[in-house]
Formats: sequence, structure tokens, C-alpha cells
Amino acid sequence: MSTFGRLLRVTTYGESHGLSVGCIIEGFPPGFEITKDHIQEHLTRRKPGQSSITTSRSEDDIVEIHSGIQNNLTLGTPICLQIKNLDTRPGDYIFRTIPRPGHADFTYKEKYGVNSDSGGGRASARETAARVAAGSLCLKYIENTWVQVVSWVHQVHDISLTEIKNYTRNEVETLGLVKFGDEILNTRCPNYDISEKICQKILLARSQGDSLGGIIACCLTFIDIGFFEYMENQVLSWVGYALMSIPSVKGFKVLKKNHLSIVIMLAFKPVSTIRISQETCDWDGEIRSLECRGRHDPCVLPRAVPIVETMAAIALMDCLLVYKSLRK
Amino acid sequence: MSTFGRLLRVTTYGESHGLSVGCIIEGFPPGFEITKDHIQEHLTRRKPGQSSITTSRSEDDIVEIHSGIQNNLTLGTPICLQIKNLDTRPGDYIFRTIPRPGHADFTYKEKYGVNSDSGGGRASARETAARVAAGSLCLKYIENTWVQVVSWVHQVHDISLTEIKNYTRNEVETLGLVKFGDEILNTRCPNYDISEKICQKILLARSQGDSLGGIIACCLTFIDIGFFEYMENQVLSWVGYALMSIPSVKGFKVLKKNHLSIVIMLAFKPVSTIRISQETCDWDGEIRSLECRGRHDPCVLPRAVPIVETMAAIALMDCLLVYKSLRK
Amino acid sequence: MSTFGRLLRVTTYGESHGLSVGCIIEGFPPGFEITKDHIQEHLTRRKPGQSSITTSRSEDDIVEIHSGIQNNLTLGTPICLQIKNLDTRPGDYIFRTIPRPGHADFTYKEKYGVNSDSGGGRASARETAARVAAGSLCLKYIENTWVQVVSWVHQVHDISLTEIKNYTRNEVETLGLVKFGDEILNTRCPNYDISEKICQKILLARSQGDSLGGIIACCLTFIDIGFFEYMENQVLSWVGYALMSIPSVKGFKVLKKNHLSIVIMLAFKPVSTIRISQETCDWDGEIRSLECRGRHDPCVLPRAVPIVETMAAIALMDCLLVYKSLRK
Amino acid sequence: MSTFGRLLRVTTYGESHGLSVGCIIEGFPPGFEITKDHIQEHLTRRKPGQSSITTSRSEDDIVEIHSGIQNNLTLGTPICLQIKNLDTRPGDYIFRTIPRPGHADFTYKEKYGVNSDSGGGRASARETAARVAAGSLCLKYIENTWVQVVSWVHQVHDISLTEIKNYTRNEVETLGLVKFGDEILNTRCPNYDISEKICQKILLARSQGDSLGGIIACCLTFIDIGFFEYMENQVLSWVGYALMSIPSVKGFKVLKKNHLSIVIMLAFKPVSTIRISQETCDWDGEIRSLECRGRHDPCVLPRAVPIVETMAAIALMDCLLVYKSLRK
Repeated sequence: MSTFGRLLRVTTYGESHGLSVGCIIEGFPPGFEITKDHIQEHLTRRKPGQSSITTSRSEDDIVEIHSGIQNNLTLGTPICLQIKNLDTRPGDYIFRTIPRPGHADFTYKEKYGVNSDSGGGRASARETAARVAAGSLCLKYIENTWVQVVSWVHQVHDISLTEIKNYTRNEVETLGLVKFGDEILNTRCPNYDISEKICQKILLARSQGDSLGGIIACCLTFIDIGFFEYMENQVLSWVGYALMSIPSVKGFKVLKKNHLSIVIMLAFKPVSTIRISQETCDWDGEIRSLECRGRHDPCVLPRAVPIVETMAAIALMDCLLVYKSLRK
Repeated sequence: MSTFGRLLRVTTYGESHGLSVGCIIEGFPPGFEITKDHIQEHLTRRKPGQSSITTSRSEDDIVEIHSGIQNNLTLGTPICLQIKNLDTRPGDYIFRTIPRPGHADFTYKEKYGVNSDSGGGRASARETAARVAAGSLCLKYIENTWVQVVSWVHQVHDISLTEIKNYTRNEVETLGLVKFGDEILNTRCPNYDISEKICQKILLARSQGDSLGGIIACCLTFIDIGFFEYMENQVLSWVGYALMSIPSVKGFKVLKKNHLSIVIMLAFKPVSTIRISQETCDWDGEIRSLECRGRHDPCVLPRAVPIVETMAAIALMDCLLVYKSLRK
Repeated sequence: MSTFGRLLRVTTYGESHGLSVGCIIEGFPPGFEITKDHIQEHLTRRKPGQSSITTSRSEDDIVEIHSGIQNNLTLGTPICLQIKNLDTRPGDYIFRTIPRPGHADFTYKEKYGVNSDSGGGRASARETAARVAAGSLCLKYIENTWVQVVSWVHQVHDISLTEIKNYTRNEVETLGLVKFGDEILNTRCPNYDISEKICQKILLARSQGDSLGGIIACCLTFIDIGFFEYMENQVLSWVGYALMSIPSVKGFKVLKKNHLSIVIMLAFKPVSTIRISQETCDWDGEIRSLECRGRHDPCVLPRAVPIVETMAAIALMDCLLVYKSLRK
Repeated sequence: MSTFGRLLRVTTYGESHGLSVGCIIEGFPPGFEITKDHIQEHLTRRKPGQSSITTSRSEDDIVEIHSGIQNNLTLGTPICLQIKNLDTRPGDYIFRTIPRPGHADFTYKEKYGVNSDSGGGRASARETAARVAAGSLCLKYIENTWVQVVSWVHQVHDISLTEIKNYTRNEVETLGLVKFGDEILNTRCPNYDISEKICQKILLARSQGDSLGGIIACCLTFIDIGFFEYMENQVLSWVGYALMSIPSVKGFKVLKKNHLSIVIMLAFKPVSTIRISQETCDWDGEIRSLECRGRHDPCVLPRAVPIVETMAAIALMDCLLVYKSLRK
């Protein structure tokens, strides 16, 4: 599925190596102020090439507004946002001949009988740039009204926070910053000591050509008790549905922490494209050894934090609009 | 609404003077051959500037495929098609100060409190370029299987065909061609004599700064009796819903003509943007006289024929996919 | 389709001779006062056996509230309404062996390969009792807020009103009453003289074993200009979609009459089940003569007036809830 | 949300103490054999009063078919199934004055401003009877075609199976049977020793007036590799969405076990209505002690097994119908 929502509906499109990825947002109320800079800020949090704990693929991910916003105001019409694909190097991709274990290469071929001839096609994490662009509008819509959304890296591999607090986004960005040599790395884990250990773990995995999974926490904080109560079931259905559609997510758990806030834990699998040699088979079923040479993240979790926040925001804004229709 | 369909879902976006208009098509089966030329052919039937009976706005309406099709094969993923807006001259548009009677200028302002600052915004007929692009894929999908769709101009103002036959698209294009001076004009009315009278009527209206409405007929011909019977109610609901969403359509009537074909009649209103002076009021309610100088069609019917065909094809393909799910 | 609406969603069920017909209404706001008597009043306007211009099938059409309303207050949960089928006489139905021309008997068999073994099955006008029950809640919801809905019989066969006014429901019920012999008949045509002629025409058709079609007008009157403007396109899409799903409706036309009101005209075909002998063929394709002896209306239009009103109300309330979500 | 599915759509209704609970199923293909006994068999697996490890509320849960099935064949029309509520004793319910911690009493009041005056209202587990009735049709539809669904109790409180196998439904029912005194109890945990320990744990909780949570496993086994691969993401979105809507479910995890089967783990919370005294507050915020005397399950897991199976079947059948539309 590429569409989320009932009243606020987001439809995404795009393969990793097509002309662009993007989305259409329907049902966004008119007369609401949205600047291109606001959308860009969230895309930049997600973009690749941020540091040596992310992929070295360098894509600027510049958003273009094609419709629905004029003079920084929403028009009430469908909003089309696009991000051009610029840094494509199909030559990197050996898996045209050998499907990657754990990735969608084999799956797609079986399901549809065709395959995108480079990258992970539709299943590429690149598709999430469109989700972040769309969700950034929803974050803006909801942030000063009824609810706040903050996500952070809770665990990478076996290194984990020991407590769960209602962090602010500022704390996540600040406490997750670690300096190694000349480089400032951002794990988005809001505890300096844990963040440092996570960094070392990721850099080690990177040097070994391996990848790591982990857990992202997402805290929804409400100021309206009616909407908070309304969301109790919706978190398990609509929000869960949105979050579990993120590629790499493999599990979902709700911790209802306390009065007026709900905490969600999302398990991410390790990236499938690794340099370490894997024994697998090619399209003809012959046993082959696969060593991937593409530029990929040793751990997606730091970059996945804004994806989780924006997907949660899409689901929340949709629920909020439905909720409004039920109130006098 | 900017979304049509249940299994085959088309979502359009675009204002007349934004960066582009376009669409996302979801649910289109994979492995189906679609060339850019095929889409372009239908866009070219709709494009402005074809002749002196259409607007002189000259837009080439070149389609770009951004996702979902690779090597001329559908991938089973969302298909994004875009058409850049090139020939925009916002200066033409006096109705920034005086809303046009019968157009969406006043409506939009009242509904949403904001307005696109040029052209008809979302309500512009330009949005239908995205529908034609999407529907051209559906026409291709259905044409060799269970059903054919052909539309033609049945009536312009008071000049009308006297009979209703199952015309072919070739007959519509050929018999609708009329020569005036150096120019070949295409009314898409499949009778040379009527077509000639229609041409004269449109050229007269054009010279007087006026515009004309009329009726387009659309014939659906089936080769499968089960699907034909299934469509009987669907024509009145899903197909009607799709066709009545075309800007300018004001009425819908079903003539079930005979065994295995259904004929639909669609009434179109005259274009609202005319050179003739109209007494109306400005945004402040002051009585004003409005003479529009934009480049607009004296009669939309010839260009609306491919719009009707492609919108019908979207609804039909969606119904066909649902129908397949009900069969063993 | 058996579901209407996006936020206010009505799903109907029921064949003419099953245990019951009914509906589930989702998305109806909580805390709203609804009495069983209110629903019953609208069902009684639609019920058969009202007079000699309707069918003599006598069904009391008593509504039962199975969920969603307690102590005359809506709970915010799905509302299930049911109407038991009591007066079923399957023996009446000769068309088990010969499908009726113009009815759904043959259509259903072709589409689905099965057939309900009595009555018109799902296509029976009886299904509309569920729509009236559901729509009566919507009429209540909207009537004191933003819009009023009034329908009336505009034309039966060739006898027609000469003007279109914004009638009240009271005028429709009062001016449409005609007395013949001992019986008061209600045509729901709001002009006594025309009403009397319509009555005579229907009684004649009845005595001859024939049936008559006609036109119902439906006037939507708004008090909020923003919602009125918002509805302009919705009338052509969502309201049209709802109204054209009524069995027997064959055409739809919008007359936007004046400031703040929209008038719709709906063409109804004559009832297919008639006593007059029709030449047709049986299930095996053999030429047969069919004379239907079931108890059916010589003209559905008087009883269809509340169906049109309530279906329009379902579509309007859904649009109103969506509209609310777009406002600050 | 009370509606599941895109092509196969199930809408449920019903509060615990209204006239009935039930559902409407749309999009079920025609001509498919379904007996009332088949539906009843699944309802009987879920019904209360089965043994001393379930609630002593004794409801026979007899299904009535109101539409859509005739002579044991589906008609292709909406299928309405109903289960009358018979054994209602509103007097049991002290929580009219004190909302139960962990149940929906307080939530509903805050969300909607109204409350059902007995039982858990819409949030009662009773609503799941309608889901089981609907899903039993889907189980029948899919079982001999592309996929099988089997669920079992994997863990109650701290007693758990140590391995996960592809059990058959017969094994679940047989190995889960335990005899205590005169009574045969069914835990639906497919290992006799673990089952016995679970029984003792539940009986102890019951005697103490307490309740227990746990984990249900659900294994989907496919015979078509294309559909298996197609379902990979759908399990994380559509199936997850369906399963997480079950009241009491609090977490969802996917274990993709091996070639052609997917195992899901669902965490259930303990029942909120317990005899043990809980310190809480009443509707006015006054601290109160609550001891519930209603007849409720000490552990819902054994009865939830058929709910999980049937909800998974609804999601799977819907996905299967969509999948069919994508194939040539």
C-alpha cells in the first residue's frame, strides 16, 4: 500500500533510481502556513551522507512544491511534493544477478514477475523521503495544537537506554551528538554515554562490512484528554498500520507510559545490503557467494528517527481530523 | 475529490500555473507494456492550441514518467506521470479583482478563504491533462479485453446529430475533420455536415467573444455478457461519479442502447471566461463590468472528447478488476 | 455498492424475502438525540400499502434499533437498524421461470451465476427501507444546522409541474393529497390540480395492469454560503453517486436555481413488474409471454420521495463532516 | 474502526447488552457454499461458558443469517449475520459508578461524552462474536486454496511453550485438552504438559479473583510462493491492522519462520474486570475501592484463539482478492 489516511490522505510514489520520489497529500486544510524551509529541515534530518555512520551516498534531497501551496499558504487542493533522484550509480548493484537475502529483490520478482533493474526499487528506503516530506506538514499542523511527537534511538544491537523519558526533540538532537576524530556523528540516542557506545558499535560494524538492527522509541504527548483517550485504540490500529509500513520495521509494541502520553517501540532489522560475504543463490537457484559493494548504511536507526516521527504525525493528523468531525 | 477508484486508484494534483500537473496511479497490474508514445498520443488529442476552434494557449503537454514503469513495462508500483506547465502568463488574468460568473473563483474563496492567484487554480480544465495521462493506460489495458470506449461530440449549442450509432474512434477523428481556409479543424463530431455547421457556430462565437456548451456521447461496448450485466448499475454509480467530476459537466443520462453496449450522454456548460462584457460584482460586492482577455476555448467539447474517454476507462478498469475478484 | 460515505458511512443489507433488511451507520457523532419514533415516521412515508396508488403489499416496516443508540442518545458506536420482512408470499413470483424485462432477474443470473429465488432479491425496492431508516438520522442531524432537503414529485409520465419553487415538506404532503371516493391518496406533488391529474393517470395505469415513470425534484437549501459553495462540485459527484444508486433511477440533472439552493432532477423508469402481457424469453431462451401477478406499485414516485430525501441527507451529512475537518 | 478490508469488507456492530451483535460482509464472491453449521462451529469455539477456565456467562451465540446466503449458497450480495444477546444481567455491573482501570469505561466517557449504561459497551469482547462469524466464512474460502491459518496459546502469564511448530488445528484442540476432576478444560495450548500448567495457573487466578495475560501465536502457511511473497509486507500492515484491533491486544511481532509460513505473536493484556479489590477513583474523582462482581474470564486467551484465526482470515482473504486483481 502506498496510501495512508482517511481524511488526510498521503499517497507516495517513486523507485530509488527513477526521476524522482514524491507524494500527493489530499485533505490538508487551506490557509495554513507552510514554508519550503520547514519541509527541507525534516528532509535534511533524514538525508544520506550526513556522517560516517550513515551511507556515503550523497543526495541533497531538495524538495520541490508542485501544487497545493502558494505564497507559503496551503490552498486546500492536493499538495504535490517531489524530490529529484540525482546521485544514481546503477553500476554499484551486483544484485541484478544475485538477489540479496532479506531484501525485496526475490520477493518482487516472485510477486510481480518483473523487477526494477537497479537498487531496491520500490522497497528502497529512498521511498521514505516522500513520507518525511509529507509528514513534515502534519508535524507542523499538530505541534501547536493537541499533540507532540518525539522519537529517538532506544537501542542498537545490544546497547540500550535503561529508562524511557519524555524527551524533547532538542534533547534527542543534542544528547545524541558524538565527536570522533574530526567528525560529529548523530546517533539520535538521547544519552551521551549510550550514544558513544552505539557510535563505536556502528563504526565497528561498518569497518567489518556488517550492519546492525535496533529499536526506535516514539512518544506521543497530548494536551487534550478527550483526544488522548480517543487515540488509545487508534494507536494500535491506524498509527500501528502507518509505522509498520516502514521498510525494515519488524515489530510493534505499545507502552502506555503515563497520563497523557503513549510510548511506542519499533524494532528494525539490520540492513540487508552488506559487504560481508553471504552464501545464497542466484536467480537460477545456483549456490553463490554475495558481497555487496553498494553505498549503504551500516545502521539505519539514526536516519529512521525522522521517518518514524513524520509517519506518526501523518496518522495522528488524520485521526485528529476524524475526531473533530465527531465533536459538536 | 481528487481520487478515483477502489482497486485501480488515480489521484491527480496540479493548479493551472504551478510547476506541473500530474497523477499517481496505484493498483495497475505489473508486467503490462506501456510506452510513453501511447500516453502522449492521448495527451495530444486533448492539448490546447490544436486549431482556431480551441484556445491559442500553446502547451505541448509532454508527459514524463517518474515511477512505476521501466523499459516500457509496468512494475506493479505506483505510477507517477507529470506534465510540466510551460506557457503561463498570469498577467492575462483580470479576474484577480473580479471573480468570473460561472467559474470557481468566488466558490474557492468562500470555501477555503484562500485563492490561487492566477488562472482557475485547481478548477482549471488544465487538471484534466493528468486524468487523460492516467486514463490512457486504462484504455490500453481494457481495449483488447472486455470493453471498448468511444466518445464523440453529439451536440454543440443547438446543432446536433440526429442518430446515435456505435462509432469507432477512427470514424470520430475522420468524420469530424473540417477544412476552413488553410486550416483543418477537428470537431470530433462523426458526421461531416453536422461537423461543418458546428465549426461555423464555434468560429462565430469565437469572433463574438462568446462561448458554447453542448453534449458529448460516450459508448461502452462489451464482449463479455457477464461483465456487461455487472456494469449496468456501476455505470449509474462509479462511471457516473467519475464522469460527473469533470469540470463543466452539468448533467448525466444513460441510454442503454442495445445488446452489449451502453451509451451515456454528458451535458457541458459553456466556458465561463468570455470576452463579451458581463455585468457582475468584484470581491467587495461593487457592481462591475467584466471582459476577460485570457486565451480560452470558445467551446471545450472537441477537446473534452479524450477526457470523457479516459475518465470512463479509469472507472471501467477499476470495475473490471473488482469484477475479476468476484469470479472463480 | 452497498456502502455510501467517507466519514458518515452507511452500509445496507437485505433481500426482499430474507429475515430482514437493515443497515449499519458508522461515524455518526455521539450524544445526539434520536428517537425510534423519528425513524419510524420516515419509514412510514415510504412504506407500501399506503393507498390504492401504491402496492397492496402491506408491510408495517417497524424499525428495531440493535446498537449504537441508548436512552435516545447516539453512543458514537456503529448504529444497526433493522426492519423485519413479514408479508412474504414467494408463491406470487412467476418470474422464477421467466426473467422480467427491465428488472434485475436476468442481470443477476449472468453476473453472479446464482439468483435469489423470490422477489427481486437484492435489487428489490425493499432494500431502500434500510436507506430511509439510515437517512432519517442524517435528516435530523442536518435539518437545524446548515441545510434543508425537500423532495417532491415533479412529473409522472407526461403530467408535470410547470414551475420549480422551494417547497417545504409540509407543502409537499398537503398539496399532494387528493381524495377519490373514500380514499385519500398522496402523490407528493405540491400542486393540487397537477396532483389530481397524476392520481387519475396512476389509477388508470393500475387498472390496465401497466406502470408509469417520471421525475422527482430535490431541493437543497443552505444557510451557510461557505458550505453551499463547497457543495457545488460535491452535488455532481457524491450526492449524484448516492442518488443514482437508487434502483429505478436512470438520469440525473442539476439545476442550480438561485442563491443558496440547488435543485436536482431525477428520472425514474416505470416499474418492470406489470400485469400487461409482455413478450420475452425464459431462462432457456424460449419465447414466452409474461404476465406478472405480484403486488407491485403502478408508479413508484410517491413512495420514492422520502427515499430521495434520505439518500440526499446521507450524502450531505457526510460532506458536512468532511467540510468541518477542513475548517479551523 | 468497525470496518476491515478493501474488497472483502467486514463491518461489525453491537454493544454487549443491546438486542444483538452482528456484521455485514460485502464483496464475498457468489456461488460459494456456506452452511449455518460451519459458522456455528467457529462461534462455539469462542462462546463463553465452555468450562471453568472461562466466564460463567452462558450465551449460546446462535447465528442467524439475515441476507446474502440462500440455500447454503452465497448470493454475491451483502451477507448479514446476527447473534442475539440473551443472558444480559445489567445489575451485575457496579462500574456504572466506578470506571474500571484498564477497561474502556473512562475512555469512552472522555471521548464521546456518553456511555453505554452496562457492560463494556462497544469495547466488550462480546463484539468479537461478530468477527468470528464473519471470519468463519473467510476461513472456509481460503482453506482449500492458497493458505491455512492456525492459532494457539503460546504463553499464559509466565508459562510458555519452548518451541514454535506448524501445528494443525486438530493438534491445538487435542493437545490443549486437560482434565480436572469431572471437567475437561481446553487451553488451546498444543502441548499437554504446558497446557496442564496453564490450567492450574488460570484456576488459581480464578479462585483469587485475579486475571492473566499471555501470548497467542498464529501461523499462516501458504502453498503459492507468489502469494506468500506478496503477503510479506501485508502481514505487517493489513494483517497487523486487523489483529491489533482485537480488544486486549497490546503488541504484535512477526517471526518469519521458514519457507512458505509466517508466524505472528500477539500479546494480550489481563482482563480488567477482576474480583480483587483495586484502588481507583469514581466518576467524580473520589478515591474508591473497586471489586467487580460480573461474570468474566480469568484469562481470555483460550477463547481468543478462534478470534485471532478468523481476524487473520478476513485480512488474508481481502489480500487474496486484491492479489488476484494484479495477476493476468
